[in-house]
Amino acid sequence: MKIVQCVPNFSEGRDLEKVEAIVAPLKNRSGFKLISYEPDKNYNRTVVTLIGDPYQISEAIIEMVGKTTELINLNNHVGEHPRMGAIDVIPFVPIKNIKMKECVKIAKELGKVLNEKYDIPIFLYEEAASNSDRVNLADIRRGEFEGMNAKMQNPKFYPDFGKNENHPTAGATAVCAREPLIAYNINLGTNDIKIANSIAKTIRHSNGGFRYIKAGGAEIADKGIVQVTMNITNYKKTSIYRVFETVKMEAKRYGVPVLGSEIIGLTPIDAIVESIEYYLGLTDFSAEKVIETHLLDIE
Amino acid sequence: MKIVQCVPNFSEGRDLEKVEAIVAPLKNRSGFKLISYEPDKNYNRTVVTLIGDPYQISEAIIEMVGKTTELINLNNHVGEHPRMGAIDVIPFVPIKNIKMKECVKIAKELGKVLNEKYDIPIFLYEEAASNSDRVNLADIRRGEFEGMNAKMQNPKFYPDFGKNENHPTAGATAVCAREPLIAYNINLGTNDIKIANSIAKTIRHSNGGFRYIKAGGAEIADKGIVQVTMNITNYKKTSIYRVFETVKMEAKRYGVPVLGSEIIGLTPIDAIVESIEYYLGLTDFSAEKVIETHLLDIE
Repeated sequence: MKIVQCVPNFSEGRDLEKVEAIVAPLKNRSGFKLISYEPDKNYNRTVVTLIGDPYQISEAIIEMVGKTTELINLNNHVGEHPRMGAIDVIPFVPIKNIKMKECVKIAKELGKVLNEKYDIPIFLYEEAASNSDRVNLADIRRGEFEGMNAKMQNPKFYPDFGKNENHPTAGATAVCAREPLIAYNINLGTNDIKIANSIAKTIRHSNGGFRYIKAGGAEIADKGIVQVTMNITNYKKTSIYRVFETVKMEAKRYGVPVLGSEIIGLTPIDAIVESIEYYLGLTDFSAEKVIETHLLDIE
Repeated sequence: MKIVQCVPNFSEGRDLEKVEAIVAPLKNRSGFKLISYEPDKNYNRTVVTLIGDPYQISEAIIEMVGKTTELINLNNHVGEHPRMGAIDVIPFVPIKNIKMKECVKIAKELGKVLNEKYDIPIFLYEEAASNSDRVNLADIRRGEFEGMNAKMQNPKFYPDFGKNENHPTAGATAVCAREPLIAYNINLGTNDIKIANSIAKTIRHSNGGFRYIKAGGAEIADKGIVQVTMNITNYKKTSIYRVFETVKMEAKRYGVPVLGSEIIGLTPIDAIVESIEYYLGLTDFSAEKVIETHLLDIE
């Protein structure tokens, strides 16, 4: 059985009746499981997590996009998170018994169908990108819904499927295949955002840090602290423990304690195995030694 | 789907042709997976690991015991590990969607069938034990094959199923249901077994240490080091990291470095989650955040 993680994001996080109507086609399906959906009021956006067969997931997403197209009007949408579409992004992540190449094919097929069925322009990004200008989602989405019609006049930003014009209410959508990404935050015992920003610079690739870290500082107002917030884009090459220990080391410069950390959303077991190996000095350990890894192999 | 781990141990680890014949009934079955079988020459014993449906596992084990009874003669058996039966122990461990109570019932049913079919006296232990004198396997097995006939004359050690007399070549067998047990070893940078023994005493329950630790010292001759070798009998209450850090703390008394550690066999993901939470100071983390935990829920 082929297993992917699929994490569609749609642009409604306040009207919970609409959110329920949109996720309804994802519930109680065979072949995959709806793990969670988390509406965020501040972002006015919902992140959905699905685990299972990519083909069955694609079929259900086609139904879901019928709902996002019907119920969301981006002309009236405000929220803190950048967005260009009612269904904004649909990433496929290979987990088990499936290669990246097949995920790319699935992302392209789904993008084509969504365009044909709903007349939404579709961009392919990350591993599914058709050229290097559109590997990063941020480069595609810059300008957001309000700016996309003008931006799509530039041949560099023609969509991969559909005409170069927003759906009038549902905007444009980005579909991709990518490696698992770990959203990871480290909490600092200070409210000084400059310290979080400085430490973020030391660990992120763009300023000379680790190859697979994108990081910044963030204020957690309700706790009166700041955090170094990051995406680990390849946890096999930049391990969680290495980033955590480096942030602890840098925080010492400021006499600031590291309070702890948090992994946002789901993580493949592989992403924590190397950290537990490091801290316990484990020899001969791997994900294969964890019972849950084998559950899918029982027939 | 109900999932148990079952770890039968049989008393042959040298004649690999016999080992293959004994495990053959466990291969390519539906409902469970043969994860591993590891013949140990020194012990002259093989540990088998099965994961899956307990009823399908029981059926296959009934076939396997036909083979151990046919191929192993304990009158000719020598090895470093204590044993009283050709099929020596059969523990059932609840993993997912099954309670201990049902595992106890399954252990009892299997014990009864094995006695009826092969005339082997059966002892139930741990959670399946019929009284407090026979909770610990070591208390039942003390005296081993050679001493069991005399021991079984004592009403305290009548078997739970069968008459109080060894099977002439296959001896007696212990069947149980129990919580997952973590076999865990911590390597010390010394060849002084007295240091390993002293540290083992500080952490084990019987000498004032942690409630769920059974530990001793062991020499690893081929590496020229010693280790603190232990069973963690309830990892939910005595976490791996706590034992590891305590051994590091004790080793400082002797100026001995802790080289690392090893988890033997399979471990439920829960057993490593608390350690990774500790070392990374994780908040809001649990096994539910690990993708592999959900694989069984996909229908």
